[in-house]
Amino acid sequence: MKKVKQMDIIKGMKVSELVNEMSLSGVMGAGRIGKAVEILSEIKKDKKCKLFFGLAGAMVPGGMKNVVIDLLKERVDVFVTTGANLTHDLVEALGYSHLQGDPEADDKELHKKKIDRIYDSFMPNEVYEGLEDFFMKIFDSLPKEMNIREFLWELGKHVKSKNSILRICYEKKIPIFCPAIADSGIGLMIWGRLAAGKKIRIDAFDDLKEIIKIAWDSEKNAIFYVGGGVPKNYIQQAMQFSKGAFYGIQLTTDRPEYGGSSGAPLKEGISWGKMNEKGRYIDVYCDATISLPLIWAAVK
Amino acid sequence: MKKVKQMDIIKGMKVSELVNEMSLSGVMGAGRIGKAVEILSEIKKDKKCKLFFGLAGAMVPGGMKNVVIDLLKERVDVFVTTGANLTHDLVEALGYSHLQGDPEADDKELHKKKIDRIYDSFMPNEVYEGLEDFFMKIFDSLPKEMNIREFLWELGKHVKSKNSILRICYEKKIPIFCPAIADSGIGLMIWGRLAAGKKIRIDAFDDLKEIIKIAWDSEKNAIFYVGGGVPKNYIQQAMQFSKGAFYGIQLTTDRPEYGGSSGAPLKEGISWGKMNEKGRYIDVYCDATISLPLIWAAVK
Amino acid sequence: MKKVKQMDIIKGMKVSELVNEMSLSGVMGAGRIGKAVEILSEIKKDKKCKLFFGLAGAMVPGGMKNVVIDLLKERVDVFVTTGANLTHDLVEALGYSHLQGDPEADDKELHKKKIDRIYDSFMPNEVYEGLEDFFMKIFDSLPKEMNIREFLWELGKHVKSKNSILRICYEKKIPIFCPAIADSGIGLMIWGRLAAGKKIRIDAFDDLKEIIKIAWDSEKNAIFYVGGGVPKNYIQQAMQFSKGAFYGIQLTTDRPEYGGSSGAPLKEGISWGKMNEKGRYIDVYCDATISLPLIWAAVK
Amino acid sequence: MKKVKQMDIIKGMKVSELVNEMSLSGVMGAGRIGKAVEILSEIKKDKKCKLFFGLAGAMVPGGMKNVVIDLLKERVDVFVTTGANLTHDLVEALGYSHLQGDPEADDKELHKKKIDRIYDSFMPNEVYEGLEDFFMKIFDSLPKEMNIREFLWELGKHVKSKNSILRICYEKKIPIFCPAIADSGIGLMIWGRLAAGKKIRIDAFDDLKEIIKIAWDSEKNAIFYVGGGVPKNYIQQAMQFSKGAFYGIQLTTDRPEYGGSSGAPLKEGISWGKMNEKGRYIDVYCDATISLPLIWAAVK
Repeated sequence: MKKVKQMDIIKGMKVSELVNEMSLSGVMGAGRIGKAVEILSEIKKDKKCKLFFGLAGAMVPGGMKNVVIDLLKERVDVFVTTGANLTHDLVEALGYSHLQGDPEADDKELHKKKIDRIYDSFMPNEVYEGLEDFFMKIFDSLPKEMNIREFLWELGKHVKSKNSILRICYEKKIPIFCPAIADSGIGLMIWGRLAAGKKIRIDAFDDLKEIIKIAWDSEKNAIFYVGGGVPKNYIQQAMQFSKGAFYGIQLTTDRPEYGGSSGAPLKEGISWGKMNEKGRYIDVYCDATISLPLIWAAVK
Repeated sequence: MKKVKQMDIIKGMKVSELVNEMSLSGVMGAGRIGKAVEILSEIKKDKKCKLFFGLAGAMVPGGMKNVVIDLLKERVDVFVTTGANLTHDLVEALGYSHLQGDPEADDKELHKKKIDRIYDSFMPNEVYEGLEDFFMKIFDSLPKEMNIREFLWELGKHVKSKNSILRICYEKKIPIFCPAIADSGIGLMIWGRLAAGKKIRIDAFDDLKEIIKIAWDSEKNAIFYVGGGVPKNYIQQAMQFSKGAFYGIQLTTDRPEYGGSSGAPLKEGISWGKMNEKGRYIDVYCDATISLPLIWAAVK
Repeated sequence: MKKVKQMDIIKGMKVSELVNEMSLSGVMGAGRIGKAVEILSEIKKDKKCKLFFGLAGAMVPGGMKNVVIDLLKERVDVFVTTGANLTHDLVEALGYSHLQGDPEADDKELHKKKIDRIYDSFMPNEVYEGLEDFFMKIFDSLPKEMNIREFLWELGKHVKSKNSILRICYEKKIPIFCPAIADSGIGLMIWGRLAAGKKIRIDAFDDLKEIIKIAWDSEKNAIFYVGGGVPKNYIQQAMQFSKGAFYGIQLTTDRPEYGGSSGAPLKEGISWGKMNEKGRYIDVYCDATISLPLIWAAVK
Repeated sequence: MKKVKQMDIIKGMKVSELVNEMSLSGVMGAGRIGKAVEILSEIKKDKKCKLFFGLAGAMVPGGMKNVVIDLLKERVDVFVTTGANLTHDLVEALGYSHLQGDPEADDKELHKKKIDRIYDSFMPNEVYEGLEDFFMKIFDSLPKEMNIREFLWELGKHVKSKNSILRICYEKKIPIFCPAIADSGIGLMIWGRLAAGKKIRIDAFDDLKEIIKIAWDSEKNAIFYVGGGVPKNYIQQAMQFSKGAFYGIQLTTDRPEYGGSSGAPLKEGISWGKMNEKGRYIDVYCDATISLPLIWAAVK
């Protein structure tokens, strides 16, 4: 058994050096950060391996957009996220920003000022006008029958900002899945067009075959979950059609005992065949706005 | 200011009496249970008010199915849930059961025995054969173009068990929404039929107009969330098209500071116009398999 | 393997009936409540067994005083708690009450109004005057050399209210331990007397022999923890001098992965010999102001 | 209002650069880390200010000893911790190590092998023999009447390792308080000596006057809490005898709604006068084995 090395902090140290100390301590949260960095580094090198990245939580309002874009550029093969993150990405691509707010602000006052609160990240409600303009402009040029993955690539095609999740997925042809897309600002925009008499048909099930095929065809799969929800579960479901993931990283603040998918440790996936029983995996119990940049800065 | 009444426990007391003591103590978790019971009782009586019920988490594997059915029978006007809960409901409707397992069981052994683990609720993998039979039998009789709500009512129509969430929603014509339906065993069944060359088109956005219309048309809305995820967020989104909910109850184990929708207190919704600023609402921080039956036993 | 029985809620049902449904469901939080009730019922019957009860958290401000008193009257053999709970008990015994407050009240305003906030349980700062009067009156009659357990019984002797934790422990001669007693309002009162030139010597280690002796001499021990902290750890420490506890119940909202004693599952104690490897134990992850009265109402 | 800057990760970046990105993002957990670094940097510079450092949780088994020693060497004026951390510090000073273990190890096996488990940090039970030797050797040279702070300095005097919390506090004459010292391996050692017929009197209340005097005399106070429990509460109590802390940092994984002191946000202290209403403070909701080294590496 290895000793728990007491961590040494050096003035001016690099993130990689800090994380190395965490690896050497090897226990509790720090040990888990260390292990996540080891696994993600291995995934980076293992070119045969396909990386499925699931992203939930208010990650764009939480300042994580560029980290996500980095991951998409450098390594991700399949991306699954929430409609909210894609909407917030589009909002920023259209030139708006999220704002640093006070989590104890008076919500009635904010409502009067038309500011929407996401804990301490504030968003002016006027972004919806910008979104509506965008969709009005592009709508007629959209194919009228698509699946959700195709629809999201179409959106990416019309995004001009280079610094956008939607744009990068389109450019790099990274399949992007978002089963609950109707549950988002983007969903509302489609509703608005339909309400205005326009037609479009976006199939709810059609792209399921795509994610399953990628999982099935791949020799080896890796999973990386930031948060739980649909993004995690949708990838887990696809893993059942593979040999199970060989690598796994999960950043979560939920816990197992309540029984939900978001809090389930990756190990549980072995029973389902979602995780390979010889796979290497780690659950990191930490706010992703802290753990994700920390891990990425050490791996990049 | 009211005093914190020290709770008195009486041998053989009723749940309603226990919850009354919680109301009178008025603080911390017990106080929140008390308040949730008051608000749900009011919702029950306020006939003008439409109740939107969002259900996430492994609630059918967690023994909550009959409580949900009770709520659907007695009061719910709009129901939003996860594909997983509907799949587990269907599994039970087909005659299978979930099993009481050990959360520390060896997942490799379970995998060999073809038992899928949901924390300590186990499910034999053979249920997928039952599901496939069901879908093979009914598939040809399904309309070939539907939205998700229509599709779920169709499923409910073919369920024979009276003790089923899907069945009750169909029978009582309770609109049931599940934007991420592809992310579930039911999704896999549709994938299987499509892979077998069958055709069906289920629209991802079409029923969004229905939930928004109900929210919009209703004089007064109430929200009740068990867990977060898509079910909560999808209802929250619809509330923006109303005067904001006048009543709100949320049972959650998540917390606000990580910024995600699941942990956001109902109050945050005021800034968005999802909660009416004069609304009565309460966040209960407690495992729903404890808090939901406790609250319901006191209200029913 | 037993089936997960879907819980049935009956109008007007008793708490014991509700908890029976939880037992029959057998999974997640509800299953744990069910198991805790089974174990506590067994402890109640097993007269050879000594029950060590550890109580942390703001349980008197949280409305749990009478439940604690019930437990002390009916079954507890050894009691360990925080100085805060004993101070709040004394405050109520002197005629003050805690008040139902707003957790979002302005703390600056409260400070001006001399109201101390414990989340949503408020306490007028004037209680300290009452405490000081009490200690000034009794101080000269106190023995001048004691251990902490003796000191706490002395306090109990001078409490007139029958409805007091300190009083009951004194009357029933239940050993009451509070290693960190200096960390409390009671501690401040002793500091005040010492500052006024009075003398008293209360030994920090002397009563450790008493709790260890009870654990050692007893044929069989049971542990019941509400919260963690010193109360839990102090009992755990004593258990090392026994065969390990044969029964264990823990109500906690903490989690294991951070490594602290408060979140450690009872199972971990087996490695130390604190829990007997044949013992029956359960960890309940739930706010104690909900779970404690619920369990007690079903057992009483 | 400032924009939420999307964090940029640069290959090979320093911890201080990473934390700067967190500061600029300014929201959720990352924003809190950023703010904690700002406040701790200010405390470092503000020489008039006395820093009270409270340390709870399994921080020595968790690899944080050297970070704590750094803080003690560079800035801490008053130190409050648990008996467990001091015992684990002493264990390491005597030449033993904690070991990196598997949190899912079989506790029965560990018990047979005499290994004590602290989540995934393991400790051979033989350390108790080393502790006993140490205490047998030094006991006769100890003063026979002391308060707890004096006792802990005495222990520090007899520790030979330079790399020890107890030693540093003794050498630098940093007052070290541990009200619940009886609740620890060190407590057991004293019990052992008393059981062997030796005499010592260590007063439970006497050093309370010392911590209060430091708080009272100081022009300005700062508080830094790693975890909650007695260390936090004991410092909070002393703050009531000052103008309230002007700076505050709290690293916690607990939450406010359960009402306990460990989860209470620093803001709550304003109502009590523990935090100055003009003070700058931040609550960081993150595993301390991650957040503490991260913050310290950016500040040092």
